[in-house]
Amino acid sequence: MVDIATRVYNHRWKLDPIVRSLLDTDFYKLLMCQSVHRNHPATQVTFSLINRSSHVPLARLVDEGELREHLDHIRTLRLSRGESTWLRGNTFYGKRQMFRPEFMEWFEGLRLPPYHLERRGDQYELTFDGAWPEVMMWEIPALAVLMELRGRAVLGDMGRFELQVLYARAMTRAWEKIERLRTLPGLAIADFGTRRRHSFLWQDWCVQAMMEGLGEAFTGTSNCLIAMRRDIEAIGTNAHELPMVYAALAESDAALAEAPYRVLADWHEEHDGNLRIILPDTFGTQAFLRHAPDWLTGWTGIRIDSGDPAEGAERAIRWWQSHGEDPRQKRVIFSDGLDVAVIAELHARFAGRTNVSFGWGTLLTNDFRGLVPHDALAPFSLVCKAASANGRPTVKLSDNPNKAMGPEAEIARYRRVFGTAAQAPHPVVV
Amino acid sequence: MVDIATRVYNHRWKLDPIVRSLLDTDFYKLLMCQSVHRNHPATQVTFSLINRSSHVPLARLVDEGELREHLDHIRTLRLSRGESTWLRGNTFYGKRQMFRPEFMEWFEGLRLPPYHLERRGDQYELTFDGAWPEVMMWEIPALAVLMELRGRAVLGDMGRFELQVLYARAMTRAWEKIERLRTLPGLAIADFGTRRRHSFLWQDWCVQAMMEGLGEAFTGTSNCLIAMRRDIEAIGTNAHELPMVYAALAESDAALAEAPYRVLADWHEEHDGNLRIILPDTFGTQAFLRHAPDWLTGWTGIRIDSGDPAEGAERAIRWWQSHGEDPRQKRVIFSDGLDVAVIAELHARFAGRTNVSFGWGTLLTNDFRGLVPHDALAPFSLVCKAASANGRPTVKLSDNPNKAMGPEAEIARYRRVFGTAAQAPHPVVV
Repeated sequence: MVDIATRVYNHRWKLDPIVRSLLDTDFYKLLMCQSVHRNHPATQVTFSLINRSSHVPLARLVDEGELREHLDHIRTLRLSRGESTWLRGNTFYGKRQMFRPEFMEWFEGLRLPPYHLERRGDQYELTFDGAWPEVMMWEIPALAVLMELRGRAVLGDMGRFELQVLYARAMTRAWEKIERLRTLPGLAIADFGTRRRHSFLWQDWCVQAMMEGLGEAFTGTSNCLIAMRRDIEAIGTNAHELPMVYAALAESDAALAEAPYRVLADWHEEHDGNLRIILPDTFGTQAFLRHAPDWLTGWTGIRIDSGDPAEGAERAIRWWQSHGEDPRQKRVIFSDGLDVAVIAELHARFAGRTNVSFGWGTLLTNDFRGLVPHDALAPFSLVCKAASANGRPTVKLSDNPNKAMGPEAEIARYRRVFGTAAQAPHPVVV
Repeated sequence: MVDIATRVYNHRWKLDPIVRSLLDTDFYKLLMCQSVHRNHPATQVTFSLINRSSHVPLARLVDEGELREHLDHIRTLRLSRGESTWLRGNTFYGKRQMFRPEFMEWFEGLRLPPYHLERRGDQYELTFDGAWPEVMMWEIPALAVLMELRGRAVLGDMGRFELQVLYARAMTRAWEKIERLRTLPGLAIADFGTRRRHSFLWQDWCVQAMMEGLGEAFTGTSNCLIAMRRDIEAIGTNAHELPMVYAALAESDAALAEAPYRVLADWHEEHDGNLRIILPDTFGTQAFLRHAPDWLTGWTGIRIDSGDPAEGAERAIRWWQSHGEDPRQKRVIFSDGLDVAVIAELHARFAGRTNVSFGWGTLLTNDFRGLVPHDALAPFSLVCKAASANGRPTVKLSDNPNKAMGPEAEIARYRRVFGTAAQAPHPVVV
């Protein structure tokens, strides 16, 4: 039976929307947004899209009109009643009413603010200005739209069977990875791949494959929409955006030095247990841990998101031990450019010494490397970051100098204030 | 949009039929059937299913009730009006009205005769008795049903994503083969994989992939239903069945020695051009060519279906040359257990020296080797052959003693009558 109605309906589509819900975003965005909405509702920020892979000529690959259509479509999205009910009523990290009524009311009324799009040579300049809680919600959908439009540009030239075989190959590869992960006893791994995914449907496929292939070892997805639809855990805590903006708002060097801890103090008031995860690398992990207040050693875990991951975990373990904490009661979450070989290696090295978990991102949801000519579907390093707050530039140092961002003079000042030592550069995978 | 109607319709299915049309058979069956219907309509034959891979316990894998349901379903099939119109009106091998009106009238009225099914240990004994033109039409559907039911038994235990990945892997493998074949200049290759296919839908997928991937190099399919639906060439000429039955009917050793040539004399009357293809190996190729009448050297080509294929082709070329024929005007068709490596090798060796083409069978339409535990989907060697004609046993010697069949005493007699020399055994792949 040919489904004529579906076929006719498909013909009518003007747009096959890439982002189809405000929940098609990362869970930590919502947690951070609630915190920002409470503590910094009036802070004005600018978020900018930055293509760290300048060899990918986005503006030549992606039609500007199509890009605008998708961004405009995102601005029409509002939280649906069912989505709102899920956020209000669901248990996240074992907690009921994670989202407070006043935040939910605001979120229910949210429409994303305008965007500014200009072509500059072979790249797009895409920025978002406005109140922090609104602007920050652009990050994930903006990235997802550009990643998927770039993919569609490549796929548009392929034959029907070529396409089918492309996905067959990608599925085979994903499943082989899952089969390898299945052999790791006590694994805990989540999908962190929304922002640089190949497409929504592909991410959804990957999540379902992880569910069937890994069972309990698959702890959930960072994607709220997929978590809701597939009835699994939504995963995530916080990100660099908070210390970056808090730091930019600091009125003095002393306040700047305090800013990363201020972020976590605000977080400490709201969250406990597995939501108390330190992300220490915004301005260099070593400096962060050296000056960290004692109460932070009581937090549940540390997320390692740049630099050498094994070194980062060893550093965390040493830090806990030097403060009389038992690392076996703690958690280390790896989330930087992971793929199965690294996951297996880190798991073998740290399982038993601490609780290990993995936030697997782009190489779960967008590993099409080598599958088309010129590797035109290989993932690339696109980010969307807070560039300024209340008119002041933001800075990120990271544990990998290749990931640093901000004006040179400010980077120098931050290095001085935080006492960030020289760092070994690592290639940025994705 | 969920297609509710399709879903409800699927629920209603009692049977998902494996063979859904009398045209879901090999084209050479129809050509042979027309010849048999004209020349030997009353000959009584028995066809038997033989599982040459006795390590595959068919009767343990395949439920007898289910097998009967499928065989019974095949007995309900009749040529539809559209199918009949296609057979009557289509051009095959460049010829209009390949099928004569009196044959078409008979075929339109055909229903397949009863079958006899008994379990013997871990195997089934499946036989068909009756008039040759009717019974011979059981061969392909009977094989396809058993192959697919064995596959379904394995697939029934698999999860949804496991299944999807299984097909993804099989598709990837098939496409990689096609990509390799694409590099061979001047290739001519057809699908000969109906009888031992994984399933109808899978064969149909493989054919479509060949169409897209190989373009003109893909010359067609032996499957009449797929040829009709996909609007491509139906390919095939004749098979061992004809000389086997003609030989069994021979009243004397002298008549026996003549039988293989009698088959081709009958064929000669009906067909010309690319349909004049000699299948010389039924009782040994060397003996066949040694005693062949002169008029046979004028035929278009030779099909190599057993023994060492390169040796077989060299022998054919020498035979043509020794009779003053130019091999470059001739055609060699390879069709025994082919896969890409062998195809590439034979193509490199013989292209330019003669016209080469390939009938690619089981390893096109059923290469699931190594894709499930215990290799439970690996193809195996199942055949359905004429076992007797008018009460006399049939014999096949082949160029590979592992493929010989018939009573020992008769095999010895045939060897003596045809002067078949000692042969080197080859493993039977599929």
